[in-house]
Amino acid sequence: MDLKKYFHMNSGAGKNSYASNSKIQGLIICKSQSVRREAAVEAYLGTDWPATMSVADLGCSSGPTALLEVEDIMEAIERECVELRRQPPEFNLLLNDLYGNDFNAVFRSLPEFYSRRPGKGLCFVTGVPGTFYGRLFAAKSLHLVCSSSSLHWLSQMPEELQQKEGSPAACVNKGKVFISAGSPPCVAEAYRKQFHRDFTTFLRCRAEEIVRGGLMVLAFMSRKNREAAMMEDLYIWELLADALNAMASENLVAQERIDSFNAPFYAPSLEELEEEIEGEGSFCIRSSDHFGAGWDDDDLYSPTGGAAADGVIRPVRYAVRMEKGVRAVAEWMLRSHFGEGLAMDDLFCRYGELLAKHYADHEAAMTNVVITLVRK
Amino acid sequence: MDLKKYFHMNSGAGKNSYASNSKIQGLIICKSQSVRREAAVEAYLGTDWPATMSVADLGCSSGPTALLEVEDIMEAIERECVELRRQPPEFNLLLNDLYGNDFNAVFRSLPEFYSRRPGKGLCFVTGVPGTFYGRLFAAKSLHLVCSSSSLHWLSQMPEELQQKEGSPAACVNKGKVFISAGSPPCVAEAYRKQFHRDFTTFLRCRAEEIVRGGLMVLAFMSRKNREAAMMEDLYIWELLADALNAMASENLVAQERIDSFNAPFYAPSLEELEEEIEGEGSFCIRSSDHFGAGWDDDDLYSPTGGAAADGVIRPVRYAVRMEKGVRAVAEWMLRSHFGEGLAMDDLFCRYGELLAKHYADHEAAMTNVVITLVRK
Repeated sequence: MDLKKYFHMNSGAGKNSYASNSKIQGLIICKSQSVRREAAVEAYLGTDWPATMSVADLGCSSGPTALLEVEDIMEAIERECVELRRQPPEFNLLLNDLYGNDFNAVFRSLPEFYSRRPGKGLCFVTGVPGTFYGRLFAAKSLHLVCSSSSLHWLSQMPEELQQKEGSPAACVNKGKVFISAGSPPCVAEAYRKQFHRDFTTFLRCRAEEIVRGGLMVLAFMSRKNREAAMMEDLYIWELLADALNAMASENLVAQERIDSFNAPFYAPSLEELEEEIEGEGSFCIRSSDHFGAGWDDDDLYSPTGGAAADGVIRPVRYAVRMEKGVRAVAEWMLRSHFGEGLAMDDLFCRYGELLAKHYADHEAAMTNVVITLVRK
Repeated sequence: MDLKKYFHMNSGAGKNSYASNSKIQGLIICKSQSVRREAAVEAYLGTDWPATMSVADLGCSSGPTALLEVEDIMEAIERECVELRRQPPEFNLLLNDLYGNDFNAVFRSLPEFYSRRPGKGLCFVTGVPGTFYGRLFAAKSLHLVCSSSSLHWLSQMPEELQQKEGSPAACVNKGKVFISAGSPPCVAEAYRKQFHRDFTTFLRCRAEEIVRGGLMVLAFMSRKNREAAMMEDLYIWELLADALNAMASENLVAQERIDSFNAPFYAPSLEELEEEIEGEGSFCIRSSDHFGAGWDDDDLYSPTGGAAADGVIRPVRYAVRMEKGVRAVAEWMLRSHFGEGLAMDDLFCRYGELLAKHYADHEAAMTNVVITLVRK
């Protein structure tokens, strides 16, 4: 599974597409908006009012969230320029995602995007395909970087757990697809090491690309508990493993394939993040904060209140949203590991049922972090 | 027909796709290669050896030609740097085409593209969607611009000929789809005016974007005869009109739709180009030259000689290539004007037959120009 080359959200606009199931990502962008706006203004002032301001969104994806962050950043800076009675800058808006992302869909929405800015200054939207765990932009060319719901994806399954099927290393996390309460300690350690390698690479690359005084605003999944095996939102993966294991017991999927799968995901604690950033040394932390975002926001899913009053009991409602949201993001990855033979409808139906049971006596909010870094 | 928003070559990789039928465009790139390489080195030296060199390809399209020019430019500069014993620059490679272009296909070919450069310096490929008859890049951000087989497309059908169907202006070029030997003089005049507006806009936008000393290398269709109505390659459009008119006589297409269609195409003479460039005033001409590129290059179509020896007589061979080449480029435009009802297979079959007759006693080469401009 070469994540770098081909990992992508479900494309198109159908019922399982990311475009139709990215409301939670929209909510996360919305909840981190004030931090991002503040950082945008600080980056503009802190890099001496550049005539052209270059703003990158790492992991833009496609669909309704693709342009949200950069549009909001422009607006914040243009508003500040009115206050300061300055000519606003031109904007280079650099949208990054992996090679398999549906950039065509994003680009086709641009005429409408540009038409929303009558009388405003020039902005130039470009697509920058490639992994953010590598260089993407020319040296010292960026003033501001934002990224939302992307950095919890690792560049690959933890290296230390990637072994031939049937080997001892591949069996170490038997019946699990992520760090789990029942996993041996070496599993969490393997994940921690992969996160360390990836996040350090990420910081080093951005340090080359961002000018002195430029900022980064990163929002992604996190955990409050210091222990990875005690992460609040472990159930996301544990219930997916349960659904897969149930299918294995009916011979619908091979048990060894489950044993050798470890989701390329990691939700670091704030302490871990601070340690990595200080260790790498190119950035200082301006602010950091946890926030919750959940499937229980009925206004988000049905602003007119329809869903809230649709008679479906709450845990089921949340479970359906989460099941669709996880499927839109993870289907390609699962398909690539388990092969076309895995019946996705069956898997996600089981997953949804397990989620509904879970939400009967648990909260539906997930822990995220938003952290602002300044290039020293 | 909003060309700016949606005009595009036939996408995908099927038998009518641009990717499968863009050999002539590849030949044109190849025939203008030495001029482009020379300009690349001059731009690098003339803009004081930038640490990051920004190179834009306007109208990159997708398929095998999409990365040809920028790759060649990098190679020329990297070779020069070896001679000069200098560290080569990093490259920003900015691929432009209209919003409807298949950028996804181009981006999916990038892992292979990057893998062809082991041990070489960094380069960053980005997609820049939008019309080159408008601003595309930040001010003073480009060192070199190239464009091949694109600038003979106008931004729209000549304004002066765009009138309601049945109105006198719409009937002025009755039964024709371009300037033709039988067109009244006002048709060529309307085309000349549209070209003037478009090309001036093009130059003004690029003048904002290109740094002093930066270069442009433009290769596109041209004519040797000063009179537009005497263009050598008029048959391209005259035979298409003949095929359409034959279909109209069988009630397969409405005559008024043909009367109101005027291909958004113009092949200027060298004198006309010089006049426009001098008139706009931001660039001086470093060099300009005509060259022929044709459907008669058997090596190009079948490097092993298979096609040359396939028993198909030459005029038919050329006609088939041209018919497929024109279809890959113009099908979308025709479909957008004539509607889904127009039987494309029928039209291009008739067109191919007319072309075969034409090539029985005419050359198959078309006139192109390659012109190098320096930003004053």
